[in-house]
Amino acid sequence: MKEENKGPLNQPSTLKGPGDDAAVIQYGNPRFVVSNHILLEGVHFDLTYFPFKHLGYKAASIGFSDLYAMNAVPRQLLVSLGISAKISEENLEEIYRGIRMACDRHETDLVGNNLTSSLTGLTLSVTVVGEVCDEEVYRHTAHEGDLLCVSGDLGAAYLGVQILEREKRLFQENKDFQPKLEGYDYVLERQLKPEARRDIPDLLKKKGIRPTAMMSVSTGLASDLSRLCSLSGLGCIIYEHKIPIAEPADLVAKELNISPMVAAMNGGEDYELLFSVSIKDYQKLIGWEDVSIIGHLVAPGDGMHLITENNESVDLQGLKVV
Amino acid sequence: MKEENKGPLNQPSTLKGPGDDAAVIQYGNPRFVVSNHILLEGVHFDLTYFPFKHLGYKAASIGFSDLYAMNAVPRQLLVSLGISAKISEENLEEIYRGIRMACDRHETDLVGNNLTSSLTGLTLSVTVVGEVCDEEVYRHTAHEGDLLCVSGDLGAAYLGVQILEREKRLFQENKDFQPKLEGYDYVLERQLKPEARRDIPDLLKKKGIRPTAMMSVSTGLASDLSRLCSLSGLGCIIYEHKIPIAEPADLVAKELNISPMVAAMNGGEDYELLFSVSIKDYQKLIGWEDVSIIGHLVAPGDGMHLITENNESVDLQGLKVV
Repeated sequence: MKEENKGPLNQPSTLKGPGDDAAVIQYGNPRFVVSNHILLEGVHFDLTYFPFKHLGYKAASIGFSDLYAMNAVPRQLLVSLGISAKISEENLEEIYRGIRMACDRHETDLVGNNLTSSLTGLTLSVTVVGEVCDEEVYRHTAHEGDLLCVSGDLGAAYLGVQILEREKRLFQENKDFQPKLEGYDYVLERQLKPEARRDIPDLLKKKGIRPTAMMSVSTGLASDLSRLCSLSGLGCIIYEHKIPIAEPADLVAKELNISPMVAAMNGGEDYELLFSVSIKDYQKLIGWEDVSIIGHLVAPGDGMHLITENNESVDLQGLKVV
Repeated sequence: MKEENKGPLNQPSTLKGPGDDAAVIQYGNPRFVVSNHILLEGVHFDLTYFPFKHLGYKAASIGFSDLYAMNAVPRQLLVSLGISAKISEENLEEIYRGIRMACDRHETDLVGNNLTSSLTGLTLSVTVVGEVCDEEVYRHTAHEGDLLCVSGDLGAAYLGVQILEREKRLFQENKDFQPKLEGYDYVLERQLKPEARRDIPDLLKKKGIRPTAMMSVSTGLASDLSRLCSLSGLGCIIYEHKIPIAEPADLVAKELNISPMVAAMNGGEDYELLFSVSIKDYQKLIGWEDVSIIGHLVAPGDGMHLITENNESVDLQGLKVV
């Protein structure tokens, strides 16, 4: 959950305070952005099944995703770790290995690493700093009539954690049980090793599209889209049949008897980019396989709606809780 | 504890990675600095006696101290909080009130605030971003023969926590016991509401002194000074009778039967500034009541020594553990 602004902004160098994926700062040129997030054991990850290297990789990826969502490029990352007694030197090295892997992939330097002991479980704090190369893109700047787009596919990360939780449960009931994770590669990878969409801002630029608003899909399409709409003072209509769900995720959803739509709308942790584009740029989006146009922005009085495949209209706000 | 560098630095914009009070970054002009630290319940604070407002204030002050230690000026602060179930809305508001108070005092904007739930106690992560106005000052750049100086006084924060722990123990033994905190104002304030020394870099500049190296005294003079020396590839000699200990701290130390020197050397959490100055600037330091010249830097082969009042030489490294 993100909190709203808590107090006045007095520094001329503060271009954007709380309420977006990152803060925007300008001391001179160029502008730059800074984001911070924490991951806590038992809330954001379960060490029973979360490999340390993946945890480091994911922690960094989340920060990178925040920066791409601002149309910025990450350059530096700082990490502070709270290490509980059960974490070995080797575990710690694996966490750093994961962070460094993500940093290499995103051409980012690890410029700060604090270690402290923790009595309360493993804690990761990640700060990412990056450059605004072109112009930053906010959440609150969408216009009525703009198209709503989302990169990649949604819901798989949530289905991944459901598989992991199921196998954990079965193992706890019977210690001889061998967790069966084969065949679930796609959803597991989406949960354990999400990739921040560095390619999307690049491709938008190449195609000559300047998104009017953008954000990272971290808590689920329903709440993230609601946020983009309310910050922009608009409503929206999106279409169920347009929501991108990957084939392997759809199969897992069926197996688990979970609605893939619920996973996409409320699952979260997909770290895809949700963005709005002027209708004038519609032609430029055509043929872009990896981006789905899922609907458009409407006047605020028109509310936020999902049109189902049966042509029913469902209030997005009501969809927020699974 | 701070970790050494973990991997290569490839970004031309990274001027300083891990190993100092903050990272130094340059995308254009001016250079800027970023620091991050976390405070964990049970390790860094005990909610039995730590008021929420003070906790917010202290969390921010630690970050500001890191920036002043780089000769930078804080401008923006981001906070991420992990909130356990026992933290009320009102407690949370108090934490923010403390952070805002510190931000006001240091003319810094609160530009990011993330909230997440925590199953493992209250967690605070603070990132501070600031401008390098003049030129940054590192830890590793001291020279042989430079004078070693420290601002304010040392050891009081440690004595403050000893008083709080004593009263907590007595209260736990007898619930009718009324904790007695009157008369301990100085040491309690140093523990609960430390002030980052914004005035020191300002005064150094006014006096025309450019410190050759500088760092925040966070873990205790013995280990922080050892760090400055080893990063600069030097040894040092400091004198017991020069170590600044405030009168009220000295009284509390006597009452608790703790050596005030041990509190100063190993207590930590003073958030004063330790810096080195060229011998050529000696005259400029005279009459500066709030800064003590405690010794000087020597060749690395000469080791790191504290000369006691009895004229004995004690190895600083051996002093690191209380």
